[in-house]
Amino acid sequence: MLLEAMPELRLDRTTMDWVVFAPSRARRPDEFRQAPRPAVEPSDAASCPFCPGNESRTPAEVYAIRDAKGTGPGDWKVRVIPNKFPALRIEESPVRVSDGSLFRRMGGCGAHEVIIESPDHHTTLLEQPVEHVELVLRAFRARYLDLMRDSRFQAIVLFKNQGEKAGTSLTHPHCQLVATPVVPRKLRLTYQVATDYFDAEGTCLYCVLRDEELAARDRMVVENDQFVAFVPYAAQMPFETWILPRAHQASFGRVEVASLRSLADILKKTLRALDCALDPWDYNLVVQSCARGDEDESYFLWHIEIFPRLTTPAGFELGSGMFINPVRPEEAAEFLRASLKDAGSRS
Amino acid sequence: MLLEAMPELRLDRTTMDWVVFAPSRARRPDEFRQAPRPAVEPSDAASCPFCPGNESRTPAEVYAIRDAKGTGPGDWKVRVIPNKFPALRIEESPVRVSDGSLFRRMGGCGAHEVIIESPDHHTTLLEQPVEHVELVLRAFRARYLDLMRDSRFQAIVLFKNQGEKAGTSLTHPHCQLVATPVVPRKLRLTYQVATDYFDAEGTCLYCVLRDEELAARDRMVVENDQFVAFVPYAAQMPFETWILPRAHQASFGRVEVASLRSLADILKKTLRALDCALDPWDYNLVVQSCARGDEDESYFLWHIEIFPRLTTPAGFELGSGMFINPVRPEEAAEFLRASLKDAGSRS
Repeated sequence: MLLEAMPELRLDRTTMDWVVFAPSRARRPDEFRQAPRPAVEPSDAASCPFCPGNESRTPAEVYAIRDAKGTGPGDWKVRVIPNKFPALRIEESPVRVSDGSLFRRMGGCGAHEVIIESPDHHTTLLEQPVEHVELVLRAFRARYLDLMRDSRFQAIVLFKNQGEKAGTSLTHPHCQLVATPVVPRKLRLTYQVATDYFDAEGTCLYCVLRDEELAARDRMVVENDQFVAFVPYAAQMPFETWILPRAHQASFGRVEVASLRSLADILKKTLRALDCALDPWDYNLVVQSCARGDEDESYFLWHIEIFPRLTTPAGFELGSGMFINPVRPEEAAEFLRASLKDAGSRS
Repeated sequence: MLLEAMPELRLDRTTMDWVVFAPSRARRPDEFRQAPRPAVEPSDAASCPFCPGNESRTPAEVYAIRDAKGTGPGDWKVRVIPNKFPALRIEESPVRVSDGSLFRRMGGCGAHEVIIESPDHHTTLLEQPVEHVELVLRAFRARYLDLMRDSRFQAIVLFKNQGEKAGTSLTHPHCQLVATPVVPRKLRLTYQVATDYFDAEGTCLYCVLRDEELAARDRMVVENDQFVAFVPYAAQMPFETWILPRAHQASFGRVEVASLRSLADILKKTLRALDCALDPWDYNLVVQSCARGDEDESYFLWHIEIFPRLTTPAGFELGSGMFINPVRPEEAAEFLRASLKDAGSRS
């Protein structure tokens, strides 16, 4: 009665969203009475498969960054492996199946990888020196470009789940990446809004938004030579913060290696501001990039979205898609700027 | 530094979603370090403002169902009051404001009401006799019809948050209702998908889906003379369950009073099946209805969606809008049918 081995995608005909049915993440129906998420990994360093020395317990490494002098298997600084419990797999075929009814499905074709951010079990991304955050971003970029060489993959979602409220129970610091064989409906709609704006105005909606935030100043959190971070005007969640490049660039895959230090700098500062303001806090981080084929388009700007998990979306949000935010973005941003200043004066 | 008194809506120009900024639900930015939700109400019966005898501590009642012989203020069976901490208020004006930039906002015009399901602090909806569930649904219908007389309101979202994982910390059984001055973007997109289907096929997408689920049988949970309940083919969440009318009807406001007993019957059975399968469980329930003006359209079918909160949407879901579901709907439905059978044989 368990899901068979093969993951699949099914089309919700009422929204045109594809839903991933993931066999290797399955529990039996009667196991849902228990803990809401399976504890798939131990949380102590000794038995953690993400820790150095335990490399043989993970699927084979697909990418790693090592010191020039590094030779042994435990010498890595950042390590990328396929997810042992993948939502989607490169072995499947993205062929769509229909039996003449409304029900449409396709093979769970895609990729699901884990970016292990550090050999240190007990650190967090924002505690890393900026040089190391840069290495994590370099791994993001390398995997993004490599997976985009597979023409079956239409979009890549890079994300981080930090803490239990953000959907992870794993302690060892890591990010994830999912490549999908469809353009997710939400992203397609977002691109459509941006395309409509470009058609009407001849400019990139996101570049205009960034410039208007820079001009307004009251929602700005931090900026540096190449990037800006602000709480967006219509933030869905308290303290939601976006990081945008100053230069137009539709795809995260187009970011220059030389820009990654600057991106690491603003990411670390933004996370630090949020951490000073909210600690303890759980959060999700997402890199939003364009879909395959639009890498050189003028309509979209890749960016990072950070969602602190401080409120619980409930029936109104699930039903309407509208969010209720109790904190005005101007107040959140002012508090974050003050927090960053305090943190700076203490360090 | 707190939000001013007036709630407002702001337009997210990248998605065209309106976000509600709700002043009376505000905390100061530095209060987010503490508990993720404010404990706005006590949870013990004696001091609970929803309990009989404490009516004077709530905003003035807008609707109630009483026994014919009921005379005193505490004699109600179901009671509806404005939310003391409203997301939207009828006093505001839905006028849109722009300063020439991309930033668009409007007054937080709408309604936010609480349907107190029972005088009994410690009961739950599924423990109520079917006659009482019918009274709760009658209150839903009465408030839906009354609020729709205000032409400023474009859509009404009826919902229930049960338990902390579903976004409530209030014990006393209650539902909520929010009337919005815009058609939420998510609903507009859903209506568009259904309209496109109707344009192409000349039939209601939801009626066809219901009939195909009835024909397939393997995702059915329970049915009666006027309604059917099933786990949808592309359920986003484990054990997500929908209740649809057998007859076409775009608006919940069009449901006949004579049909409410049948609806109460299937709602109670569905909740009971889920409760037997999952207890302890938290859930959200949403009544999906058409927007103003489409009450007699052929393209949409009002229905109820029930979302057990067993998994935590994380970075992938937030970023892509795609969900990962570890349980195939056929397995969930089979387990629910068996649970309902067990429950029946025990009672």
